[in-house]
Amino acid sequence: MLEAALSRIFDEPVKIAGAGRTDSGVHACGQVVSFETARAFPFDRLRIALNSALPRDLSVREATVVDAGFSARFSALERSYVYAILPQPEPSALLARWSYHVWLPIDLAAMQEASRGLIGTFDFRSFCGVVPEFGGTIRTIRALSIEPRAGLLRMHVVADGFLHRMVRTIAGTLIECGTGRRDPAGLAAIVEGRDRRGAGHTAPAQGLYLAGVRYAGGYDSYAEPPIFGAPR
Amino acid sequence: MLEAALSRIFDEPVKIAGAGRTDSGVHACGQVVSFETARAFPFDRLRIALNSALPRDLSVREATVVDAGFSARFSALERSYVYAILPQPEPSALLARWSYHVWLPIDLAAMQEASRGLIGTFDFRSFCGVVPEFGGTIRTIRALSIEPRAGLLRMHVVADGFLHRMVRTIAGTLIECGTGRRDPAGLAAIVEGRDRRGAGHTAPAQGLYLAGVRYAGGYDSYAEPPIFGAPR
Repeated sequence: MLEAALSRIFDEPVKIAGAGRTDSGVHACGQVVSFETARAFPFDRLRIALNSALPRDLSVREATVVDAGFSARFSALERSYVYAILPQPEPSALLARWSYHVWLPIDLAAMQEASRGLIGTFDFRSFCGVVPEFGGTIRTIRALSIEPRAGLLRMHVVADGFLHRMVRTIAGTLIECGTGRRDPAGLAAIVEGRDRRGAGHTAPAQGLYLAGVRYAGGYDSYAEPPIFGAPR
Repeated sequence: MLEAALSRIFDEPVKIAGAGRTDSGVHACGQVVSFETARAFPFDRLRIALNSALPRDLSVREATVVDAGFSARFSALERSYVYAILPQPEPSALLARWSYHVWLPIDLAAMQEASRGLIGTFDFRSFCGVVPEFGGTIRTIRALSIEPRAGLLRMHVVADGFLHRMVRTIAGTLIECGTGRRDPAGLAAIVEGRDRRGAGHTAPAQGLYLAGVRYAGGYDSYAEPPIFGAPR
């Protein structure tokens, strides 16, 4: 969609590089993309031109000219994802597409205890859907928190990078700890096992938000998912 | 949808009465419906049975047995709607289906000033899409407020009842006052004119939420729309 709109605007094929994975059904409030063009364009009007061309479920918050060699994907220092859990017996029509409804009672302290076993530099192969061809499966989780907010549980995870379905597998595994189906003390063993079958289920896409990407120089695209507060 | 699910559960045709209008595209977090049945049923399990049968964009928060003669529609004392405005230059993909994006700068004080002219008992014919066959066009607005919340503007209006498209026409007219296209002091004259052409545009359905219905005895179904805070 975005590539098609950019290609129309610049009247040449445009290839974008995206900072973070957003599989089908995953939301993004802080995605960053970059592209190269040799065309002249009033770039201060690019955001408006793009938003006019894009469907309403895709919008551009900012568009700016960067140094040659910058890549939204390869220059990123840190990505931040938010996972939204709706912990209540009854489903919610208004939140169904924006969170993961867990009707079993959740022990938040158990989820938090389990989460501590994942902070640091580890081989996250057990939490990886499709193992990448290049780059290996070692990643560093710098922060991982779960807290109640706005009637939901907000899981926030920051890492240098993420593997395929890593955040959703972490969410599914921690939820299983919270609902008593899994021992919170067992997370280290799951990591050490380096086997996807040792971890829990993949939590559904609709609870996941790519919330922000941080770059050298301090630029951070972070925006809170609207169901938790200030929207974008 | 709800009638079909109830008819299947009770194995007889069920007719529901709804408390408030929700035209196509309008959201509801506090809708109340009632129906009659002579069938025996474990009613404490009705909510769960219904939520299993309903599509995920329709959910039941509570189901309870009431006195004979109660009608969700005719026993209601007061309805409360919320209208969500996104006041910023750029559109938001995540909020597009949940608010009305107004990219022109909005003077909140002008909207608030204009809103004061609508509080009280008036003939609201100027703010009515299709004039009802029965019941006339006089209604009492008990409260009408507009305030910034969570990066949006939240209009909240409470009345004994509402006419067809009344909240959306009020929202459209007040927004025109806020963007300078209409004089905030002119609201009284619009009401007195009793002519739909005197009021502003009908703000779009996706910004509107039926938030709550109040009954004698103090029962109130109010739930805040998720984009403003605690969800349901």
